[in-house]
This record gives sequence, C-alpha cells and structure tokens, in this order.
Amino acid sequence: MSVVHISTKSKSYEVRIEPGLRHTLYNLMHAHKMSDASSFLIITDEHVHDLYIDDVLAGFPKQDHVYVEKVASGESSKSFEVYQKLQERALEIGLDRKSVIIALGGGVIGDLAGFVAATYMRGVRFVQVPTTLLAHDSSVGGKVAINLPGAKNIVGAFFQPELVIYDTEMLHSLPEREWRSGFAEVVKHGFIRDREFLDWLKGQVTSFEQFNDEFLKEMLVQSIGVKADVVSADETEQGIRAYLNFGHTLGHAIEAELGYGELSHGEAVAVGMIFALRLSERVFQIELPVKETITWLETLGYSTNVPKGLSAEQLLASMKKDKKTTGGLIRMVLVEECGKAVLKDVADEPLLDLLHKAIEEGFDDSWN
Amino acid sequence: MSVVHISTKSKSYEVRIEPGLRHTLYNLMHAHKMSDASSFLIITDEHVHDLYIDDVLAGFPKQDHVYVEKVASGESSKSFEVYQKLQERALEIGLDRKSVIIALGGGVIGDLAGFVAATYMRGVRFVQVPTTLLAHDSSVGGKVAINLPGAKNIVGAFFQPELVIYDTEMLHSLPEREWRSGFAEVVKHGFIRDREFLDWLKGQVTSFEQFNDEFLKEMLVQSIGVKADVVSADETEQGIRAYLNFGHTLGHAIEAELGYGELSHGEAVAVGMIFALRLSERVFQIELPVKETITWLETLGYSTNVPKGLSAEQLLASMKKDKKTTGGLIRMVLVEECGKAVLKDVADEPLLDLLHKAIEEGFDDSWN
Ligand SMILES: NC(=O)c1ccc[n+]([C@@H]2O[C@H](COP(=O)([O-])OP(=O)(O)OC[C@H]3O[C@@H](n4cnc5c(N)ncnc54)[C@H](O)[C@@H]3O)[C@@H](O)[C@H]2O)c1
Ligand SMILES: NC(=O)c1ccc[n+]([C@@H]2O[C@H](COP(=O)([O-])OP(=O)(O)OC[C@H]3O[C@@H](n4cnc5c(N)ncnc54)[C@H](O)[C@@H]3O)[C@@H](O)[C@H]2O)c1
Repeated sequence: MSVVHISTKSKSYEVRIEPGLRHTLYNLMHAHKMSDASSFLIITDEHVHDLYIDDVLAGFPKQDHVYVEKVASGESSKSFEVYQKLQERALEIGLDRKSVIIALGGGVIGDLAGFVAATYMRGVRFVQVPTTLLAHDSSVGGKVAINLPGAKNIVGAFFQPELVIYDTEMLHSLPEREWRSGFAEVVKHGFIRDREFLDWLKGQVTSFEQFNDEFLKEMLVQSIGVKADVVSADETEQGIRAYLNFGHTLGHAIEAELGYGELSHGEAVAVGMIFALRLSERVFQIELPVKETITWLETLGYSTNVPKGLSAEQLLASMKKDKKTTGGLIRMVLVEECGKAVLKDVADEPLLDLLHKAIEEGFDDSWN
Repeated sequence: MSVVHISTKSKSYEVRIEPGLRHTLYNLMHAHKMSDASSFLIITDEHVHDLYIDDVLAGFPKQDHVYVEKVASGESSKSFEVYQKLQERALEIGLDRKSVIIALGGGVIGDLAGFVAATYMRGVRFVQVPTTLLAHDSSVGGKVAINLPGAKNIVGAFFQPELVIYDTEMLHSLPEREWRSGFAEVVKHGFIRDREFLDWLKGQVTSFEQFNDEFLKEMLVQSIGVKADVVSADETEQGIRAYLNFGHTLGHAIEAELGYGELSHGEAVAVGMIFALRLSERVFQIELPVKETITWLETLGYSTNVPKGLSAEQLLASMKKDKKTTGGLIRMVLVEECGKAVLKDVADEPLLDLLHKAIEEGFDDSWN
C-alpha cells in the first residue's frame, strides 16, 4: 500500500492510497486508533452515494451506529443551511465525542463534513475518503470551510483529519470535466515545488482516458507529497503555504466573476497558472515554457484564455477582494523557475496591463 | 494593574483587571501586538451597548474601521441564525485576516463572538471584554460555542482570545440575579481547587451589595487564577479541565428540563454543587460542610433545592444526554475534600436514589 505521511504542528496522519480501499474503511480506521469509535456518520453526496455507499457500508461489521447523510451534489451544499442541518442531524442521532465523521466524496464533501467535524462538540474525529482527483488536494492539509454568497470558504477552520483513505478505483467513474478540474492542482504542485514531477507529467499525461490504478497511485503519491511538504512546514498559512495559491488569485476571480460552476475550479486555475507564468516572466525578466504548457493543457481539453466577457478591471477588483491581498498590493505566487515558487506583492498597473493584453490577444500570441 | 497569565498549548495571553479599562481598549490592544489591526468589529448586546458603547468608542483614536454589531440580550443570541448574520456582516464590512473582533458583554457575547472569530476566514484575532461576573469564567479558556434547540454549546471550537480586558466598573450595573449567576462559578473554583479562597469568600461575601472595585479585583484574580491553572494544564478537556464541570452535570439538567432562563445558569449550578457535595459524602464516606454551604448560599439569595416539578427520572435522563457521559455511566465531578476535585463514574442507581431524596426531602434535612 502506498502511504504519504503528513505531519503538522497539530496532528500527524497518513494518506493511504490503493485501489479497493472503500471496502475496508472500518478495518483501516480500527488500525488507526479509531477502535474506540462509538458511532460513525458518513457524509456523502448524491452521486457518490449511489455509486459507492453499498460497497462502503458492506465493510462495516455491524450496521448499527453507522449513519449516512446524503447532501445534494455540488458547491451549493457548502452552505450555512446544509451545515446547520448536518449539525442538527448529528445531535439527533446522538453523535458523541467518541464518534467519527467520514467525508465520502470530493472536495465539497471534505470541506463541509470537515467543518461539521471541526465544530460539532468543539471537534470530533474525522476521516477523509476522497473520491475525486481534486480532493487529493483538498483532503490533505486540514482546511475546511463553507461559503457565503459571493465568498467561497469564508467561514471555516484548520482541522486535520485522523486519516485519509484514497481508493483509486473510485476515480474511474469521474466525468472528464472532473479529471480536468483535479489535474490542474496536480500540475500546480509540479510548478511550485517539483520540476521533475512536472516534466514526468508532461511526458506521461496526454489524455484522461489512459489512467490505470498503478499510474494514478504514483501520481497521487507525488502530488500529495508536495502538498504534505508545504503544509507540514506551514499548517496555518503564515508563510509558504501561500504557494498553494499558485494560479488561484486570478482563478478565483474568474470563477467569481463568471459565476461559480461555469468553469470548474481547475479549469479556472489553469488560466490563472498561465497568467502567473506570464507575470513571472515579466517580473523576473525570465523565459518560462509557457507556450509548451499551453499546448499541453489544451491537448487535455483546457481552454487557457481568459473567458470571453470578463473585463480586466472587473477581474482586478475581484482579485483584490480575495483574501491574499495586503496593504493594497496583491500578493501573487509566481515562479522563479519551473518547480520554484516565490511570493511577490504586485501593484495594480502591471496586473491590469497584463490582464488587458491577455483579454485582447490571448496568452499565446507573440508575447514579449 | 492586576494581571493573570494564561498559558495554553495553543496560545499565551493575559487577563487585565482594573476599574475603568473600557476607556482604553484601543491602547491596550495596541500594546498587545494588535497595533497592526486593519479594523475592529465590536460585538455586543443591547443592554451593554446602551450602557457602555459610548465610553468604549471614545477610546478609539479614529472611528473609521471600528464597527459595532448589536444583538439581542440573552441566550437566544447564541443561535445559528445570529451566528450566520454576524458572519455575513463581517464579510460585508470587509473584515480581513488582520482584523480584530471584540466581544463586549457577558458569556453569551463571549461565546458567540468568539465562535465568529474562530471561524471567520478560519480564525481572526479576538479580544474578550467581559461585562458580567459570570464571564470571568467564560472569557478565559477558549471555549466558544453556539446552541441548537435542546443542546447548549453543541457547536463550537477551542479558540483562545489574544487578551482579556476586565473593567470591574462595568460590573456595578449588573442586576442581582446576574451577580448570583456569576458568583456560583466563583464558589465552584474554590470547591474544586482552592480551599483557602473558598473560606475567604465565605467570610467576606454576605451580600452582593457590598462589592467595591478593590474587592472585586482580588476576587477575580483568585477565581480566574484557578481557571487559568486548570486550562493551562488541559486546554482541550482531555483530563482535569473536566473539574470545571463541578455542579454542572445536574445544573445543566435542571436548566434543560426547567426550560432555559427559568433559573440563571449559576442558580442551577448552585443546586448542582450541593448535589455533588452530598454525592461526594456518600461515595467517599466523608463529611463535608454542606449545611454551612447551604446556609451561606441561601443568605445570598440562592435556592439550593431542586426546583419543584422536576422528576428524578427526567433529570437523570437529561444528565445522560450531557456530553460528560461515558459508556453508560455518568462522569461526575466530586470532591474528596473542599478544594480538591476528583472524577468519578457513577451508576444510575445511586444517582437516582439521591435525586429522589433531594426532591422529596431537600438537601438540608437529616442526611445520612
Ligand atoms: N480544503 C482545501 O484545501 C481545498 C482545496 C481545493 C479545493 N477545495 C474545495 O473543493 C471543492 C471542489 O472539489 P471537487 O472538485 O472534488 O468537487 P465535488 O466534491 O463537488 O465533486 C465534483 C463532482 O463529482 C462528483 N463525484 C465525486 N466523486 C465522484 C466519483 N468517484 N465518480 C463520479 N462522480 C463523482 C460529485 O458528485 C460532484 O458532482 C470546492 O468547494 C473547493 O473550494 C478545498
Ligand atoms: N465559554 C465558557 O467557558 C463558558 C463558561 C460558562 C458559561 N458560559 C456561557 O456564558 C453564558 C452566560 O453568560 P452570562 O451569564 O454572562 O450571560 P449574558 O451574556 O446573557 O449576560 C447576562 C445579562 O446581563 C446583561 N449584562 C451584561 N453585562 C452587563 C452589565 N455590565 N450591566 C448590566 N447588564 C449587563 C446582559 O445583557 C444579559 O441580559 C451562557 O451562554 C453559558 O453557556 C460559557
């Protein structure tokens, strides 16, 4: 079994990656100090429920004290309403301090169930069982949150899981759009921290149809390894954890201005990464393999230009609302070279200038 | 100025106690590493607002970036609804990671504003400015929470303030009922940890009209000192922090069964403490100054009997719902002697038996 170790100030835990693990959640938890669990609440979404809940439940020796709560699929479940409903439900079924909450789903479920766990009785244990590629990112590192209209992840906590259980088999039912969304975060991990991994990805990944479990395992181990590194060094985002925002400042702005759901998170981040690369070239007067990256990402079905209809001014204003701003400047994650992120506070003009150019000419054409 | 130091695993901070501090919040925060605050959100309740907000605001050099949110007075504000409203408001006025939330009020405001601070942007700094006697307890130790119908403090976090600023002058406007509610927690601190303090209290306090600021300061320093000790040893209630529940297991049950607000928290805790003392006598075969304590508390206006209309079975069932139960038994905080708490898992029968006796005969008559 492949294992990645995460150690943060507040907790150390493992990410276990292997095809078929959904059948043995109970045993894995039992072996990871949860043998004293008084009850389990599995929080999942409709799609994942219909695909996998039977497999998952079959792995529990007894069905009593195992509860399932299903929420609607999609971002809209990261709401106060659903959060409150789940808390009420936890109380109703009598979850206590020895209970374990299991997040069975993608990043939405991980964030939502994690925030429930972080705050029910001031914190009960929880286990992440990611079922999307994107959730390789979201399930590790302990950021949990819900949204307010117009502000994603605005209310939440830092709360680490006891264990992350990744069954690569469950990924095979993902629609292509979700592969694309998750893969952007894999690419991000390469850009900020691991050039070799990035090059390996560029060589190996030319479509999302080819992935077998062995390859997936390898990719996840590498990509989670980068995240583990970063959050181990900086659990609560005082310093280098900000690197994980590479591509996200513009990415979030695009999502917000376009309306959430128009582009997937990863699709927006892909545009944001290209933007950050071009900005890095300007700021550090270097050349990066931007064109090559664009070509590769477009082969994979990403559209790397700023979506039509968005204005530079609008995007900049939205970037400034993002929580990564300080003293008026926008704190951007750039790269000095592939595999090496740096933070840089950037003023409005160069950003606006680049945004205008990107919107009018696209990133691909005759830069510099 | 009197200062009590609190040091927990996650944070160290001070409790500053002095008449008149409400006029100088800004300066105190400035001197305690909050000189970089980008904005302040003062959360308070109606009563406190009308009494003290002008004094408080006058202490801020500039009024911009100082926001006030007023909620209804009383327990009902510790709700999901108010919590969400405050989060929305925080977002609306643009609080960011460098903002500071100030809880100006009693335990309700401290718990509510603290939970907002713990979760807005995954945690922004907050300062407790307790205005009730009870809040000498609630403002220290980092427990913050809101309620669900039928379950107090069920959703919350451990989140320590940056600083606690206690202006004893503000206590003078408290109605007698609130003195009584808060004083029960003072007495509790004596019983669980500090016999000398308890004896001093018994000697000094014969009514709630006599308190001058010097006396209050002394009492608060001692009482907060006990709490500081306990939470420093055990921030997240793994062990001895449970001592703080002395009197609370039955106290909470009485509050819940009677309907919240019928008795004040402290009034219910007073009954719970007498019950815990009588139970201690039985369990450890000792004699404690119960009768003397009853007389003292009744002089102060407490009624120390279980309120009419409650049944032993009902109370026991409610005690079992309380989060302090393990494996069917009820984990009670008892005392081996005055000033020395111990935990003891107690079965239903002795509890029921004692409850019956208490309801039928009262605690005062011909025990043993
Ligand atoms: N906490 C963090 O550090 C962090 C990091 C990045 C993203 N996020 C959050 O993650 C969320 C996005 O995560 P996501 O992309 O996984 O979204 P998601 O959880 O909504 O999943 C995407 C879609 O795929 C479906 N799905 C999930 N697993 C499936 C499977 N195995 N087979 C078929 N369909 C499946 C879901 O029902 C949903 O419709 C966002 O809310 C984002 O804010 C959090
Ligand atoms: N977090 C903890 O560790 C902890 C510990 C004990 C209690 N609590 C919580 O504390 C809450 C009770 O606190 P409380 O008794 O302070 O209640 P409270 O905050 O409701 O205050 C009681 C009443 O006094 C009024 N008031 C406050 N300050 C005043 C002043 N200076 N002058 C005149 N009136 C004033 C309030 O408006 C209110 O009507 C409960 O919700 C309880 O759960 C928390």
